[in-house]
Amino acid sequence: MPANELKALVFDVFGTVVDWRSGVIAACRGLCADRGIERDWAAFADAWRGLYQPSMSAVREDRRPFVTLDRLHRESLDQLLREFAIEGLSEAEIDHLNRAWHRLDPWPDSVAGLSRLRRRYVLATLSNGNVALIVNMAKRVGLPWDAVLGAEVARQYKPLPEVYRSGVEMLGIAARECLMVAAHNSDLVAAAACGLRTAFIPRPNEHGPDQQSDLAPEGDYDWVASDLLDLAQQLGC
Amino acid sequence: MPANELKALVFDVFGTVVDWRSGVIAACRGLCADRGIERDWAAFADAWRGLYQPSMSAVREDRRPFVTLDRLHRESLDQLLREFAIEGLSEAEIDHLNRAWHRLDPWPDSVAGLSRLRRRYVLATLSNGNVALIVNMAKRVGLPWDAVLGAEVARQYKPLPEVYRSGVEMLGIAARECLMVAAHNSDLVAAAACGLRTAFIPRPNEHGPDQQSDLAPEGDYDWVASDLLDLAQQLGC
Repeated sequence: MPANELKALVFDVFGTVVDWRSGVIAACRGLCADRGIERDWAAFADAWRGLYQPSMSAVREDRRPFVTLDRLHRESLDQLLREFAIEGLSEAEIDHLNRAWHRLDPWPDSVAGLSRLRRRYVLATLSNGNVALIVNMAKRVGLPWDAVLGAEVARQYKPLPEVYRSGVEMLGIAARECLMVAAHNSDLVAAAACGLRTAFIPRPNEHGPDQQSDLAPEGDYDWVASDLLDLAQQLGC
Repeated sequence: MPANELKALVFDVFGTVVDWRSGVIAACRGLCADRGIERDWAAFADAWRGLYQPSMSAVREDRRPFVTLDRLHRESLDQLLREFAIEGLSEAEIDHLNRAWHRLDPWPDSVAGLSRLRRRYVLATLSNGNVALIVNMAKRVGLPWDAVLGAEVARQYKPLPEVYRSGVEMLGIAARECLMVAAHNSDLVAAAACGLRTAFIPRPNEHGPDQQSDLAPEGDYDWVASDLLDLAQQLGC
């Protein structure tokens, strides 16, 4: 499709723009090393992320009202501290650890790629992360968003269609003028079902060296790019 | 109060950051001059803004569900085109005129003042303007927002408390850590009632040369500054 029909790009963030796994591992290790607590922090990070989808399901399936991802992350963290028998952390330390998700580093191409894309398009997040999380993350490393949309603004979690529709509506454009950029096939399939254009960016190390999922596009997407700089190039930015 | 307690600044936009009246007058004159239509465009702009509060009241008082300011502006514009006997505009032209509110210019100090404030604080809009309006306005002239909050995100219009509370909650901070910046006493009184800190910036030409209201602070605000550069100076940015 012609890129000149596009008006805005909306982005998945965890995994697509930032490297959550390395950041969470480093935050856990850093906090606990000082106290002589040693665990398999990669397993801890994977377990934390493993509770991500189940925790959101309770909201998606109307078993609880909308709560932010910060809240869901904290509930999962409390559970995992028990399971990994990590004791003695203060409330302030646990809160700081929970906010490791606010302090994630971008992939090497993210800031430069987004900065090029932003010259021509409106860039918004369409993440399950809450507004404060996305704003704090952006501020720390210079991610140049024009707007922070997604789960908290829509009061629902991806991949439910309300989130994609809310993003498009708030940007004041037609769905076909909006490009969803993600490293996850499930996100793009859900966005396409709402009429958005789609771009797949593989992030083969998101889940570490043994990643099995989302290594390649599994749908007929409008664009496939090796990273965000390549996407900028393909879109003529 | 000490500025170091603050974490975020939230801004009224129309009148506080941008000069809506000059922009609307110029847009009306520009569109209609080509067609030989002459009217008192200052009176037209004032009448358009005059319908702003009544149009939002229908939402605030639950007489209609939430609709965006773009929609309310359009309804008011349709009414005024009839009242001013302006005929022969196409749908595309009327839509373009309605979006004059997306193309307003900032006051001379706004971009520089906000850029200084943004080095130290999170900056978010807390406007009654909808997300697309605020994003398009920012993109055109370089207003450096970290997040676009306010009426559309809260599904309610200022000065109802839901809007201020929603902004503070989404920023993940306490109300006392949030500074509302506005050129309108009513906005600041409502923000203070929700526990936010307050800064008054007079904009004595917002309503043109005969402005009578909001020429001076009418409350005990935390800061009073002559413009956004002065506010940045007072906050040590």
